[in-house]
Amino acid sequence: MKIDKNKPVILVTNDDGIYATGLRTLIDIMREIGNVLVVAPDKPQSGMGHAVTIISPLRVQKLAEEDGYEEYSCSGTPADCVKLGQKAILGRKPDLIVSGINHGSNSSVNVIYSGTMAAVLEGALENVPSIGFSLNDYSVHADFSKCKPYILSITRNVIGKGLPEYTCLNVNIPSNNGSPIKGIKVVRQAMAFWEEKFDQRMDPQERTYFWLTGVFKNYDTGVDTDEWALHNNYVSVVPVHFDLTSHKTIPLLKDWETGNLN
Amino acid sequence: MKIDKNKPVILVTNDDGIYATGLRTLIDIMREIGNVLVVAPDKPQSGMGHAVTIISPLRVQKLAEEDGYEEYSCSGTPADCVKLGQKAILGRKPDLIVSGINHGSNSSVNVIYSGTMAAVLEGALENVPSIGFSLNDYSVHADFSKCKPYILSITRNVIGKGLPEYTCLNVNIPSNNGSPIKGIKVVRQAMAFWEEKFDQRMDPQERTYFWLTGVFKNYDTGVDTDEWALHNNYVSVVPVHFDLTSHKTIPLLKDWETGNLN
Repeated sequence: MKIDKNKPVILVTNDDGIYATGLRTLIDIMREIGNVLVVAPDKPQSGMGHAVTIISPLRVQKLAEEDGYEEYSCSGTPADCVKLGQKAILGRKPDLIVSGINHGSNSSVNVIYSGTMAAVLEGALENVPSIGFSLNDYSVHADFSKCKPYILSITRNVIGKGLPEYTCLNVNIPSNNGSPIKGIKVVRQAMAFWEEKFDQRMDPQERTYFWLTGVFKNYDTGVDTDEWALHNNYVSVVPVHFDLTSHKTIPLLKDWETGNLN
Repeated sequence: MKIDKNKPVILVTNDDGIYATGLRTLIDIMREIGNVLVVAPDKPQSGMGHAVTIISPLRVQKLAEEDGYEEYSCSGTPADCVKLGQKAILGRKPDLIVSGINHGSNSSVNVIYSGTMAAVLEGALENVPSIGFSLNDYSVHADFSKCKPYILSITRNVIGKGLPEYTCLNVNIPSNNGSPIKGIKVVRQAMAFWEEKFDQRMDPQERTYFWLTGVFKNYDTGVDTDEWALHNNYVSVVPVHFDLTSHKTIPLLKDWETGNLN
């Protein structure tokens, strides 16, 4: 694509797929800010976590090209889209990676199941400023347009001030049900969990199968969490990194070290 | 299964699939320690990250049952296997969850792509002590048996002393190429990365496709990392948690907070 060098190059992806309303809203917002390359999955990829495609080849299809804009669908996962967009299509690191707007929350522990956030963590691994946006509204009529001023505010902060190295953002926007959003809060990931059950059924051939179901429960009483922010009508911004080490645990296990045991 | 109440109940899974040699080695070791329930994917699931199956049903097949032992294959991902094993088969939390022995390393950032470690993080989410074991050897003739004394040592420490709440272990065993393993080190996740490339090809119908390839590079000069341990012939033990918040970044972004923008 023909790039306007006065504007940043923004890679846009999602996990709900190339035709999702949330992606279209995010594309429109990003085109107000910069050159935009869209590489998004050709089918919904929710719950794919940080899956990458290594045992089958990837395919891409160009869907649009004009000055400052190109759009591709990709047969892979959100993480694949970010890798392929950078390494095979753009041939350079973008200035910003954004993912979403996800149709549903990615707050709390949902970050580890989320394809939206897997794409964003791929950006962090490349040390490219990256933001995931999710709307905490599962309705088919979810109004993504109300996200715009918050997405613009956060995105302009990231472009103007940068992010610490290898750090990305998990942004969740409340389903405010008509009451006004109160603003933006910078918070931590809540200790909230899925309490899962399996719905056991019998198919017409009398073979058993299971559907995963569950309810989401917040056990975290802190007023500095993403769950608190969302339930109090604030947009939550959680800075996220990919160091999963529990550093405080290391000294507790030092006496487990041994010499050769063979 | 008939459970020996004097021994722990251990849930065993992996991401290389029910027929993998590494799983068979791990089952044999765990049967020396406790009652064993195996629920493992019916096909290899490498690179599936923390994928969960929500848009299709799950199926399981019982492959073996005897006193203190049951074995099932499952159509889902490693994360699915842990959820289903606990909630639909066992009907209670196991005393321990182990995953592996993975055929290849899950050190450093591989933790976020790893199906082996997704299963282990599922255990941590349930606050069940959980350990992932991986052998840093990609050879088809990889010798998993040498892992046994280290797996026994670490597993007995976990059963005897427990782990801090919501914390699990990522254990990698070096491919020592004949030289002796020096012992066990408790370390942090290294800042090492995949430098990926896409191999672009043309199919017989003259349509382009891509294969993901890459080399793994360690940029971390610390002598307290899993990569350092493995390259120096130590078994690496990284305590892992699922809080991805970059806590130190929160105060840096506090001036990004706003009030209502709509």
